[in-house]
Amino acid sequence: MSGNTFGRAFTVTSCGESHGPALACIVDGCPPGLALAEPDIQHDLERRRPGRSRHVSQRREPDSVRILSGVFEGKTTGTPIGLVIENEDARERDYDALRDRFRPGHADYTYQQKYGVRDHRGSGRASARETAMRVAAGAIARKYLRERVGLSIQGYLAQLGPLVLAPVAIDQVDDNAFFCPDPARVAELEAFMDALRKAGDSVGARVTVIARGVPTGLGEPVFDKLDADIAHAMMGINAVKGVEIGAGFASITQRGSEHRDPLTPTGFTSNNAGGVLGGISTGQDLVVSIALKPTSSLRLPVASIDLEGRPVEVVTTGRHDPCVGLRATPIAEAMLALVLMDHFLRQRAQNGDVRSPTPIITRRM
Amino acid sequence: MSGNTFGRAFTVTSCGESHGPALACIVDGCPPGLALAEPDIQHDLERRRPGRSRHVSQRREPDSVRILSGVFEGKTTGTPIGLVIENEDARERDYDALRDRFRPGHADYTYQQKYGVRDHRGSGRASARETAMRVAAGAIARKYLRERVGLSIQGYLAQLGPLVLAPVAIDQVDDNAFFCPDPARVAELEAFMDALRKAGDSVGARVTVIARGVPTGLGEPVFDKLDADIAHAMMGINAVKGVEIGAGFASITQRGSEHRDPLTPTGFTSNNAGGVLGGISTGQDLVVSIALKPTSSLRLPVASIDLEGRPVEVVTTGRHDPCVGLRATPIAEAMLALVLMDHFLRQRAQNGDVRSPTPIITRRM
Amino acid sequence: MSGNTFGRAFTVTSCGESHGPALACIVDGCPPGLALAEPDIQHDLERRRPGRSRHVSQRREPDSVRILSGVFEGKTTGTPIGLVIENEDARERDYDALRDRFRPGHADYTYQQKYGVRDHRGSGRASARETAMRVAAGAIARKYLRERVGLSIQGYLAQLGPLVLAPVAIDQVDDNAFFCPDPARVAELEAFMDALRKAGDSVGARVTVIARGVPTGLGEPVFDKLDADIAHAMMGINAVKGVEIGAGFASITQRGSEHRDPLTPTGFTSNNAGGVLGGISTGQDLVVSIALKPTSSLRLPVASIDLEGRPVEVVTTGRHDPCVGLRATPIAEAMLALVLMDHFLRQRAQNGDVRSPTPIITRRM
Amino acid sequence: MSGNTFGRAFTVTSCGESHGPALACIVDGCPPGLALAEPDIQHDLERRRPGRSRHVSQRREPDSVRILSGVFEGKTTGTPIGLVIENEDARERDYDALRDRFRPGHADYTYQQKYGVRDHRGSGRASARETAMRVAAGAIARKYLRERVGLSIQGYLAQLGPLVLAPVAIDQVDDNAFFCPDPARVAELEAFMDALRKAGDSVGARVTVIARGVPTGLGEPVFDKLDADIAHAMMGINAVKGVEIGAGFASITQRGSEHRDPLTPTGFTSNNAGGVLGGISTGQDLVVSIALKPTSSLRLPVASIDLEGRPVEVVTTGRHDPCVGLRATPIAEAMLALVLMDHFLRQRAQNGDVRSPTPIITRRM
Repeated sequence: MSGNTFGRAFTVTSCGESHGPALACIVDGCPPGLALAEPDIQHDLERRRPGRSRHVSQRREPDSVRILSGVFEGKTTGTPIGLVIENEDARERDYDALRDRFRPGHADYTYQQKYGVRDHRGSGRASARETAMRVAAGAIARKYLRERVGLSIQGYLAQLGPLVLAPVAIDQVDDNAFFCPDPARVAELEAFMDALRKAGDSVGARVTVIARGVPTGLGEPVFDKLDADIAHAMMGINAVKGVEIGAGFASITQRGSEHRDPLTPTGFTSNNAGGVLGGISTGQDLVVSIALKPTSSLRLPVASIDLEGRPVEVVTTGRHDPCVGLRATPIAEAMLALVLMDHFLRQRAQNGDVRSPTPIITRRM
Repeated sequence: MSGNTFGRAFTVTSCGESHGPALACIVDGCPPGLALAEPDIQHDLERRRPGRSRHVSQRREPDSVRILSGVFEGKTTGTPIGLVIENEDARERDYDALRDRFRPGHADYTYQQKYGVRDHRGSGRASARETAMRVAAGAIARKYLRERVGLSIQGYLAQLGPLVLAPVAIDQVDDNAFFCPDPARVAELEAFMDALRKAGDSVGARVTVIARGVPTGLGEPVFDKLDADIAHAMMGINAVKGVEIGAGFASITQRGSEHRDPLTPTGFTSNNAGGVLGGISTGQDLVVSIALKPTSSLRLPVASIDLEGRPVEVVTTGRHDPCVGLRATPIAEAMLALVLMDHFLRQRAQNGDVRSPTPIITRRM
Repeated sequence: MSGNTFGRAFTVTSCGESHGPALACIVDGCPPGLALAEPDIQHDLERRRPGRSRHVSQRREPDSVRILSGVFEGKTTGTPIGLVIENEDARERDYDALRDRFRPGHADYTYQQKYGVRDHRGSGRASARETAMRVAAGAIARKYLRERVGLSIQGYLAQLGPLVLAPVAIDQVDDNAFFCPDPARVAELEAFMDALRKAGDSVGARVTVIARGVPTGLGEPVFDKLDADIAHAMMGINAVKGVEIGAGFASITQRGSEHRDPLTPTGFTSNNAGGVLGGISTGQDLVVSIALKPTSSLRLPVASIDLEGRPVEVVTTGRHDPCVGLRATPIAEAMLALVLMDHFLRQRAQNGDVRSPTPIITRRM
Repeated sequence: MSGNTFGRAFTVTSCGESHGPALACIVDGCPPGLALAEPDIQHDLERRRPGRSRHVSQRREPDSVRILSGVFEGKTTGTPIGLVIENEDARERDYDALRDRFRPGHADYTYQQKYGVRDHRGSGRASARETAMRVAAGAIARKYLRERVGLSIQGYLAQLGPLVLAPVAIDQVDDNAFFCPDPARVAELEAFMDALRKAGDSVGARVTVIARGVPTGLGEPVFDKLDADIAHAMMGINAVKGVEIGAGFASITQRGSEHRDPLTPTGFTSNNAGGVLGGISTGQDLVVSIALKPTSSLRLPVASIDLEGRPVEVVTTGRHDPCVGLRATPIAEAMLALVLMDHFLRQRAQNGDVRSPTPIITRRM
């Protein structure tokens, strides 16, 4: 009800504030027998970690994860997996000036009005720091999907402000600090970000995530369509303002004769659907795009109000990301992994023994 | 788990196929004491009904709703409200040719592979006919929100294929068959649709929905953000391929100094956020846009496969909507109502007695 | 949240009042391919139906069930199954005298205080008539469990007031109106009930239900233990005041050396556990007992209050069961079926591909 | 789905094994503004802790709880509360002999068959050590209920094997190691336990819990009746084999004229109902009793099988409770607190603004 649990069959329940003692989560429903140790999770955490380049927050957090339970002699046991990351570089004092005033574009005002009280230090629970546990939990889902289902997930930065990036080398996105899929454009991105930082401003971004090897048949076809649950997962990431599946908003101007993807005995001949028909996976690549708004924490002043509703001016200093989109790729990948893992188990519950006379026309990895 | 229940505190569980005996739903969690009778629900059903103009499906369904329970002497009692709509103009025979072959762009193939069996008549449960129960349940939520919370919801057709429609007269959308917010453009839409029907093709659309008078504080701020739950609700509507909140995908190219909405003692001075910050409603207008793909049921032939995976050609005749977007407005309104009603009750559960020292800066209706 | 949905993977959502238009439910999550038609459900409804003997309520309800959805050409499709039973022998007037006063031992006062309003006709939704939908939904679960899992469920009347009944012929319980497992005692029960009815009083009962052929491994071992979910299911039946598993309350005075059931290569040598260890099914017979309180609707007068809190005397006439326990057997069987079906699917979700080196020591049917 | 989350509106998700690194839980949905610090939780943990007397397990665990999140400047913020207790006195080696064999009466065999693998050290997650997090989470619920609702909860040992204990001094149960409500009987209990320990055997117990000051109207009246959710909570405690509400199993032999509790303008004149009618709280004392089986970990040998299904003899040494009932009182209190807290919030969601014309006849604390 209060929204800190994600999923139905494979669930993640998380807690933790940006400048509190620690972040934690409990992953429930993981099948037993999966080989799992801290380094398996740490790898994805590294990709999300702040301080990796000059273009992201300079907070120094090792983000070392500790497994509390659910693993015995190197394998999952089927019992819930507890994970903890201690906060080590919190600087409460940085936020003293914000205790009594609301930063526009942030959750300050809404938390205050919802709960009557808020932890003002670094946005409290509204901080993007919360996403560390999503990435940690997602790493477990990804490992299972990769090893047991043959499903892989890869995201990339598809647009940085006005700069649209083509996925020419999607396998090399981890080689640069931007998750840029076009190595030739990295220098351009660096220059753009340096200028932006100098101007004290921020910019939005588009991130695209693709899942390959998705089994045909995932998704519950009315309210919990696979794409509906993906939209829920993605729009729940901090700063996301839009979600598309396949052709997305471009489908508005398409004709039906163009949009519908023909079937042949060896597969579909196009993928406007983005891998989902009627809310159920087709077995094609699952293609999801998200829009991230520009960060609102700027050193440029802006009008706002204080705790009593009086007008004030707000200037934000400290350690912030000038483009949250730069670190969003591993988070979006993690959320997609969580949705797919959940639906893999849900599908097995109801339809675990289904046999169809129709052959699967999409190659399974 | 199988996804036919929507919501947590105010829930809708639905059933029914396009050409089965009836559609039904059970609405649970409705507060007691709300005046309710069939005509309250019928009004919204009329707006969604097929056969209202030559531009939509010509199926003749009165869509008469019957209340089975939960209402006593004209008021809700707090017990679940059962609703039934009988299917009266089903024509099973229209679909005999599709029994053994899959229509591209439809859920035929995916239902077959998920369940090993499918009701091929008019898409079975994947038919947009399923949305009648969403509208019926949504009508109850809307009535409560309007009468008890002072919250109103209005949607409109924002784009039909290439034709972008400005919301110049949002209060007149019910006066035409398109939910067009610009009366001067209706003739143009008629001509466009006539040409499209003649060509045997279909087109996509954009629908925008706005909620006014939303209380500040709705939404559970991590996984079940208000906008995340809205995205889930909207992407779960048949044919939807994209969802935006506020500035949506346009926020990619915005600067932070432009996007963030300043606060003043009398309100926000802009609404790029679309009424949500940190997943919690700000009290501003809630602005949601969705992209609907073009219908795939065309009389133009297309390549496909049959039940055994052999190549076939598919031609779809019968009664179909050449643009599902034309009837999507009341459905999107209903889904938004269900999300807001659910979160209104969820907010009351945890924070029913919260008092904040900060004044509400957005005028409540 | 409002509690009209039962289960997680195999769910039943129900609605309907005793003297409203109809009862209905929606069963979601049923695996596809199960042969199903109205008579499969009607059989269990007949066993629960009022008016079958002079010892139960004389209300004349055919309880004819209609399937609205989810079944195509005689088989389930995986989509939700809608069921409706029309109320045909409602007599609103019988309850006019109770409109403004509360019957002790009934839910009248509590409904009034919870909802501020209540449907006073025949207890509204608090009527045992609500259990018809449990039995209908349970019939689907039972059919699946019997045909696909080899699991059978049988209940019986274990005690009627002071009369303790031994399960000497559990296969003959359907041959008498009491679900008595000892045919030689039926005449005694008849005489007891006739005397009770003459006295205008009522009595409690104990019903025992046994499931045979339960797979080893069902149940989620901490909060949703199999026995915990059974206790939830059973205590949720009208009039139930106690639930036991296996040795139950007798285990208080047992020694550990006596209670613990030894394992051998061919099975357990006793069953004090009642088929559950650590919340997980052992594969032995699952044995559940419930205590049902005596009906409170008596023609003997009793002190109470009216709607304004003033003292009144209440006398209940009309059509009532002098022992609700007499009709409780099929209801308890149905609830056990729903729990086992739900856990069968839940187990398949997480552990569908588990292989243990240890042989199953309990014979599977 | 995998059952490690309890509740709907006020939820507890827990993890941790007996001999793993730590136990943890996340409490979600706690209303903001509640004063909370570690000592508030520690107090109840002390009451459950092992090693408090010679009659319970001699494991030395300080059970020091650490709050990770959800509390800011001494008050809850409405965000999830993370709690951790490190395991400090684990002795893995004690269990080496049990790695390949199943202890009768324990969850060893069922975990193995469910998951195909198990953590054999001290029962892993099936250990009663898991209940520490229930008590910790329950302490938060109890504090809220006491301070904001005026509701108090008190349990006691009602029976130890053959010794039935009358609640003559319920306010003094914390003064002895047994939670015995009759101080004059404590010496007798000591002697009984000493003899039992000498015999190497164990015995069952009955624990009764009473909640006072329960608001009228809690409970969702069909499947999630207040008593049904209590039964679920109680039967989910390790070793519980039976649950009763009010008159419980004694109601089998009661007459309706005796069982039904008359209402008067100043209250009910009896409480056979145990505080619940139709699944909704009456406002009277809520009275719940549970039966706990005797511990199965004995040094007396017993027949069993090993991992390959071969016959073996099992002897259990190490640190065990000869009567788990002795430490069950704070656990049962905690579970009752969690159910009541959850239903308090659920009731506020749907019926937060209900006003009934009928006065509340039970005095509120």
